[in-house]
Amino acid sequence: MAEEKRAEREDWTVLESEYVIRRPWLTARRDRVQTPHGVVIPEYYVLEYPEWVSVIALTREGRFVFVRQYRHGLGVTRYELCAGVCEREDVSPLVSAQRELSEETGYGGGEWREYMVLSANPGATNNLTHCYLATDVERLSAPHPEATEEISVHLFTPQEVVALLRSGEIIQALHAAVLWRYVAEHHLL
Amino acid sequence: MAEEKRAEREDWTVLESEYVIRRPWLTARRDRVQTPHGVVIPEYYVLEYPEWVSVIALTREGRFVFVRQYRHGLGVTRYELCAGVCEREDVSPLVSAQRELSEETGYGGGEWREYMVLSANPGATNNLTHCYLATDVERLSAPHPEATEEISVHLFTPQEVVALLRSGEIIQALHAAVLWRYVAEHHLL
Repeated sequence: MAEEKRAEREDWTVLESEYVIRRPWLTARRDRVQTPHGVVIPEYYVLEYPEWVSVIALTREGRFVFVRQYRHGLGVTRYELCAGVCEREDVSPLVSAQRELSEETGYGGGEWREYMVLSANPGATNNLTHCYLATDVERLSAPHPEATEEISVHLFTPQEVVALLRSGEIIQALHAAVLWRYVAEHHLL
Repeated sequence: MAEEKRAEREDWTVLESEYVIRRPWLTARRDRVQTPHGVVIPEYYVLEYPEWVSVIALTREGRFVFVRQYRHGLGVTRYELCAGVCEREDVSPLVSAQRELSEETGYGGGEWREYMVLSANPGATNNLTHCYLATDVERLSAPHPEATEEISVHLFTPQEVVALLRSGEIIQALHAAVLWRYVAEHHLL
């Protein structure tokens, strides 16, 4: 109850709100807001996205399933976890994560559990990323990515993953967070 | 050399590029791009930001300096690392990080090193976050945040930080990544 009251006091009041762009891959909203201390911020931008998912997928042989692809925002090609967006037709983030793993890598099956929930940037984005840990996955098909996705699939040992993390190769914070947590919890250092 | 050639093949060719919004807190660019396999993506959005910084700050007594503030994108109030934006007048990301720690918490001094470089989302954003590890910091002044920042300062023991991480309180991926790395490297579990 005390927590709830504090949360109410800390929330900003939205005085006005309008969309500045609404496209399938970018929706941005401009809010005019007032802080609890009465300060008015005339333009505060929020990026609206669907929920996102990512997967630490481990094969029966204990290999981590990674993908490698070009990322145009930063202009780099890096190893990453399999990840994607919750589509409207997905009944849950778990289904989205399983679909993304199948599409991007051809792997599936095994045991799945939600491992972490993260935000890429809670100041600016309104969505969460649901990060799954899938164990005992198997290669069930060939990958079948979308036409715009040029992705290669790679299997790494735990020590190879540690080396990728330490070298700075895993630059995507959502992926670094779950992988470093896995390293910490499994005492891989 | 082989790596460089591969990187060239993986990069997308920008066919057209225009800004859809250019404001101090939101700059978005729409690129028309072509993948190496010849697929044209008619609208791909990139968000342009200055470099960002964050700090794991440890006092001489071994306490972690955290801040707590409301985040309007997600609409939540959470504990976070001290973090901010590189201003034009900052001569380096290190200076930005030291300035942010002083402004938001009043702490400073000690030994600083770059601990990780991360991207909030390399598919969509063009900037990096430089994460510092500052040890032996001291409270040198009162905090002096900007008028729009309503921030409280909190000191936690290493085991309190582990509990915050495990509970899911640390939802900002850029912060979870550096903190889980610290936990892994310092064998705090």
